[in-house]
Amino acid sequence: MMKRGVIALLTDFGTDDLFVGVMKGVILKINPQVELVDITHNIPPQDIFSAGFLLKSGYHYFPRGCIFLVVVDPGVGSERKAVVVCTKNYFFVGPDNGVLSLAAEDDGIEKIVCLENEQFFLTPLSHTFAGRDVFAPVAAYLSRGEKPERLGRNLDTIEKIHLPLPRVKPEYKPPLFCGKVAFSSEVEEHILQGEVIYIDHFGNLITNIEKDIFTNFVQDRKFIIKIKGRKIFSLSDSYQSVKKEEILAIFDSFNLLEISVNCHSAKQLLGVERGERVEVEIVREE
Amino acid sequence: MMKRGVIALLTDFGTDDLFVGVMKGVILKINPQVELVDITHNIPPQDIFSAGFLLKSGYHYFPRGCIFLVVVDPGVGSERKAVVVCTKNYFFVGPDNGVLSLAAEDDGIEKIVCLENEQFFLTPLSHTFAGRDVFAPVAAYLSRGEKPERLGRNLDTIEKIHLPLPRVKPEYKPPLFCGKVAFSSEVEEHILQGEVIYIDHFGNLITNIEKDIFTNFVQDRKFIIKIKGRKIFSLSDSYQSVKKEEILAIFDSFNLLEISVNCHSAKQLLGVERGERVEVEIVREE
Amino acid sequence: MMKRGVIALLTDFGTDDLFVGVMKGVILKINPQVELVDITHNIPPQDIFSAGFLLKSGYHYFPRGCIFLVVVDPGVGSERKAVVVCTKNYFFVGPDNGVLSLAAEDDGIEKIVCLENEQFFLTPLSHTFAGRDVFAPVAAYLSRGEKPERLGRNLDTIEKIHLPLPRVKPEYKPPLFCGKVAFSSEVEEHILQGEVIYIDHFGNLITNIEKDIFTNFVQDRKFIIKIKGRKIFSLSDSYQSVKKEEILAIFDSFNLLEISVNCHSAKQLLGVERGERVEVEIVREE
Repeated sequence: MMKRGVIALLTDFGTDDLFVGVMKGVILKINPQVELVDITHNIPPQDIFSAGFLLKSGYHYFPRGCIFLVVVDPGVGSERKAVVVCTKNYFFVGPDNGVLSLAAEDDGIEKIVCLENEQFFLTPLSHTFAGRDVFAPVAAYLSRGEKPERLGRNLDTIEKIHLPLPRVKPEYKPPLFCGKVAFSSEVEEHILQGEVIYIDHFGNLITNIEKDIFTNFVQDRKFIIKIKGRKIFSLSDSYQSVKKEEILAIFDSFNLLEISVNCHSAKQLLGVERGERVEVEIVREE
Repeated sequence: MMKRGVIALLTDFGTDDLFVGVMKGVILKINPQVELVDITHNIPPQDIFSAGFLLKSGYHYFPRGCIFLVVVDPGVGSERKAVVVCTKNYFFVGPDNGVLSLAAEDDGIEKIVCLENEQFFLTPLSHTFAGRDVFAPVAAYLSRGEKPERLGRNLDTIEKIHLPLPRVKPEYKPPLFCGKVAFSSEVEEHILQGEVIYIDHFGNLITNIEKDIFTNFVQDRKFIIKIKGRKIFSLSDSYQSVKKEEILAIFDSFNLLEISVNCHSAKQLLGVERGERVEVEIVREE
Repeated sequence: MMKRGVIALLTDFGTDDLFVGVMKGVILKINPQVELVDITHNIPPQDIFSAGFLLKSGYHYFPRGCIFLVVVDPGVGSERKAVVVCTKNYFFVGPDNGVLSLAAEDDGIEKIVCLENEQFFLTPLSHTFAGRDVFAPVAAYLSRGEKPERLGRNLDTIEKIHLPLPRVKPEYKPPLFCGKVAFSSEVEEHILQGEVIYIDHFGNLITNIEKDIFTNFVQDRKFIIKIKGRKIFSLSDSYQSVKKEEILAIFDSFNLLEISVNCHSAKQLLGVERGERVEVEIVREE
């Protein structure tokens, strides 16, 4: 008997063409009872990093057993593998180009299967649309309870991508001696350097600085957050804690440090793109 | 037992990020049987007015008992309340900033509950994403038949927004005496002044002049509709009743006076933004 | 009893307003059990050709019995007919302006019904939104098993649109005699001329040259593909078979010749719009 399940779709297909609709048609032909949820189809074309980051940020909000159908696939038709990754609570179906790795490793990988059994594919296979011919039908069969091991051979590992990690810069330079100023001679870590790794629809600048890292670094010391010549001296509890169009720093809903502007786009107001440097600097008390 | 219901989503989250998908994941975790319908997620950021206007225009086309999950929430994380408004036929869940008021009052408010019972929230609560942490789970529990009174304490009223109303201008100025021209000396109401309150995807200009108001005002008199220097002398029955790229006036599917251009964008052709004045002027017969 | 079915929506309504949501509300009021799938709502306004082409390209991937609700309807409110076309495997509901014809003829038309029975419409009928008032409720009743013949009177034919066909140009001009060059004096067909009929989200240029036509024309001869001054000397098996940002030709997932650029937009890089000429030229061996 069929089982009802959830397939969540994440692609760079956009919503102007029929790619997404056709994948859904293929799925419903195989499992009419499945629930289909769009995460987004507006990943910038071929941007494996953004897709992988979003997937990692959100996957655990979905019901246990959910099948993530992820198609950001610049290597479609080439030798790149197609895989299903079974984790502790979920299934991730997509190309083996790293896009699945952040989320799958976060949940705990239990099995990796290389999709090779053409019995579960559409035929003839096209060279340009594995989403329709391979990933959608495989996800549909999984949602009906098909065993992953029947889909192909086991793999030991998948391709990986990595989020850039924030770095602590121990660039302490002892001041020139100038009179009787007392200062600690030990080299202190006094700058935490991160970067903007994602910019959302509202123009909020999401950095790679997690709340735990920030808190451990800052402790009870005074700090300044610096980005593109602007300085922020405290953390906010809400966007409206500053005046309209003023800049603020806040821990966002994914526990990442976010630079925002109340009721406006920080991206636009500050002219910032992904990759922009963000620094948390400890203020020395004298 | 679970009940099948409908949750209709209306937000300013856009569809580029994972906000909408994550809210749906949260809902399906709580009620796997619910039907999810997107109204739109492309409300201009923080535009409570547009969201409230669209909600009022369309809510009554949805099945009885439908739960409207409305998140246009510039005050997220501040002291603004979160509410569910129970009306004669529906439930409206969202921030108490006015966005729910036009629709809820139109249907008839029966109960207002301030969302305070954290048992129905996700924890820990973020400061920036009440859609995920408060509104989505509350909507999901409602769709399973949870009683609104269990969600928090009763409120007497909600915040309100108001559509600008059209005005009748009795600005009759008696003409200078010039020969034997006869004219009525009584001051007539001869201009109905409204404005463009919404512009749709096709560039149609939707005004705040309802069909009833127009009809009562005009009666069987001749009229001119004026907008940005253009004049329209009659109402059309269809877009194609004028030539391609010609301007027309029509009562739209929500019974509002709409200024359109056949097979083109009136917004673009006339260079009009929201707020532009529209006048219906009675033509005096001599 | 209600039956579960699939309604697939294809419109030019965009996703900024409430048009699509309201149609779905109307449908769910009539059949709460139906599955709703969006093909796309981003057809360029009033572009019957693009909608008809996409529908033809993808309809057969959907489950048998699927109801296609197609609303690209510049003639709304005029005398154009509203129809349901029953084909061998599907139902197509929409305006009779040609938008349904490519797909319906491809599947095989079995019955055409002119929608006239107002019992299945919303009342009062608006002049501007037949999607809500006519097409959505009719699709919903069909999904519940309503017999098409109850919706109105039979028609013999529907309006048609046509894809432009590629042409073979027998423009062979015998070369001037110059020495002892041997050449075949028979007039050969040596150019296959097509055009770009669709450009997708990735900027891939989809032509009207089907794989069969190409193969029959080229046979085992050498060829050059020409577009906007660029030349391509072979077909690729995948986008990655050439270097990044290099141009290639490939048969796409709908068996049409596609001009692409690896990891970039061919539309943008070549500056090409729909209608651009594409030529496959046979290279004469000397």
